Amino acid sequence: MPPGEFELIDKYFARPARRAVLGIGDDCALIAPTSGMQLAISSDMLIEGRHFLSTVPPDALGHKALAVNLSDLAACGARPLAYTLALAMPAVDETFLAAFSLGLHALADEHDIELVGGDTTAGPLAICITVVGEVEAGRALRRDGARAGDELWVSHPVDGGLGDARLALEAFRDRVRLSGDGLARVRRVMERPNPRVALGRALVGVATSAIDLSDGLAGDAGHVLARSRVGATLQAAALPRSSLLAEQDTALQQLCLLHGGDDYELLFTAPAGRDAAVRQAAVEAGVAVSCIGRIDARPGLRVVGADGAAREIAARGFDHFAAQGSGV
Amino acid sequence: MPPGEFELIDKYFARPARRAVLGIGDDCALIAPTSGMQLAISSDMLIEGRHFLSTVPPDALGHKALAVNLSDLAACGARPLAYTLALAMPAVDETFLAAFSLGLHALADEHDIELVGGDTTAGPLAICITVVGEVEAGRALRRDGARAGDELWVSHPVDGGLGDARLALEAFRDRVRLSGDGLARVRRVMERPNPRVALGRALVGVATSAIDLSDGLAGDAGHVLARSRVGATLQAAALPRSSLLAEQDTALQQLCLLHGGDDYELLFTAPAGRDAAVRQAAVEAGVAVSCIGRIDARPGLRVVGADGAAREIAARGFDHFAAQGSGV
Repeated sequence: MPPGEFELIDKYFARPARRAVLGIGDDCALIAPTSGMQLAISSDMLIEGRHFLSTVPPDALGHKALAVNLSDLAACGARPLAYTLALAMPAVDETFLAAFSLGLHALADEHDIELVGGDTTAGPLAICITVVGEVEAGRALRRDGARAGDELWVSHPVDGGLGDARLALEAFRDRVRLSGDGLARVRRVMERPNPRVALGRALVGVATSAIDLSDGLAGDAGHVLARSRVGATLQAAALPRSSLLAEQDTALQQLCLLHGGDDYELLFTAPAGRDAAVRQAAVEAGVAVSCIGRIDARPGLRVVGADGAAREIAARGFDHFAAQGSGV
Repeated sequence: MPPGEFELIDKYFARPARRAVLGIGDDCALIAPTSGMQLAISSDMLIEGRHFLSTVPPDALGHKALAVNLSDLAACGARPLAYTLALAMPAVDETFLAAFSLGLHALADEHDIELVGGDTTAGPLAICITVVGEVEAGRALRRDGARAGDELWVSHPVDGGLGDARLALEAFRDRVRLSGDGLARVRRVMERPNPRVALGRALVGVATSAIDLSDGLAGDAGHVLARSRVGATLQAAALPRSSLLAEQDTALQQLCLLHGGDDYELLFTAPAGRDAAVRQAAVEAGVAVSCIGRIDARPGLRVVGADGAAREIAARGFDHFAAQGSGV
């Protein structure tokens, strides 16, 4: 007889609670938050064919499912505490589960957090993770704190930039051809994002607002601008890009940089003159940061191109329904 | 153009934060827990065709999706604080969303909690809710606290008992015929469970262990017995049942009472001699409770029938994979 729901949870997901008061195996998990801290909570659902390709290796999927949630904590400047997982899968596939849980636990260990609640069920492959973190009361990084005159910054890999995940997707869709080495590199960026948790923590008290880049720079910037009731002007030349992306044609570069999605970098604002503090935070976190523009009182998102002219662009992100094509 | 993901969240799910520091619309929600309290967290995923029938009215589905999660908080004795929702649906269906969110918000208002984070996406209908509550440090009701000699109790409606949700399911499957009135009554029990949050709170300091009945009495009792390393003897005649269930044949009654599932009542233990305190908690919570047996040092679950003989029964609950039939 194949293992049932409870055996699966035990076998692949339950590990002894270390930090939690009570982990998997009861009706609820129990966590003791630090006095004086506020809780930050975020949930994301990942669906096969929409958020990930069926070709993604299961360990990378486990990594990414947790990474995109940790990225939300990073954007708030919160320290991760624990997470829960609800997993639907068509049938018990132990090869999948073994690899998936490996990727999940490895990233969790990196951030010293643990899985405190699990729910597995039969159904179309869907992964729902909820992360809980804590941040000093009143000091969370929010989307509504950007002020005219602030500088706009973005994090990125020391040897890379934005848009590589989108470049990988374009390659998988056969819209661009990459060398084997290049494809492997951008595929890794797409499948194994590094949530910028350490940077988020270091930016508490430095940044005035922050968001994580999940739906593309233009769209995510739009959320900050709308919530903060300001506008922004970006310098196209300042957008950090990998050497591989820099080799592509201008239209593809622009697509990947501005509308890429799946970057999981932090877009944040800081008062002009706080450059040194921002750069110090980045050094502490071991990540690169680039100043890509400034916040304006005038609404709208503008990009200054090579010709020095500013063009308005739509601050729209990836829409999971609109992207579905006709019928919705 | 149909509304997109962000418009949907705004229209149906976002409401101004009242208790939360920061509600829907940022990377994370922010909650300020009460000093000295521990956090209780639980996640559940509901999949169409597995956890609910496609015929369920959307407002009842909204109610139930939150109710089953609140029931987990109840079983820990926790006070609900907030919840997040991740929702996948095949296409934007505003009729569904309007009714679904109505059912959700109505139950949330009843418990004075709010939706603090939302994620909507296209995909097969799936609902993932995570609830967060708080409970006095070190006083949460757990599954591992039952001791030999404790009495075993179960909550139930003042005019009902266990198993009516399963009776409704059997009627929907045409395995039993109920009168129109009777069908409406048990259908309501199945579709609109009342999470026993007030009872859970009142049992803190009274009950030695607790679990909520989601997979059937025998299976859920089994979890408590396993975690507490004890056994139990139930009195079949003491199992509370509605007048409608009492009219059914013995085999069906036993199926519904012991292996029903979807009861969302609390099964809990309390020291013998604490009857008055248990009954007082039930009165405060406005719910009925019945003493249905006792905890034994000897492992296993036994049921004493009408003939006075004790039979061992398998302490197995509903398994979402095993129930899928062949292929897994």
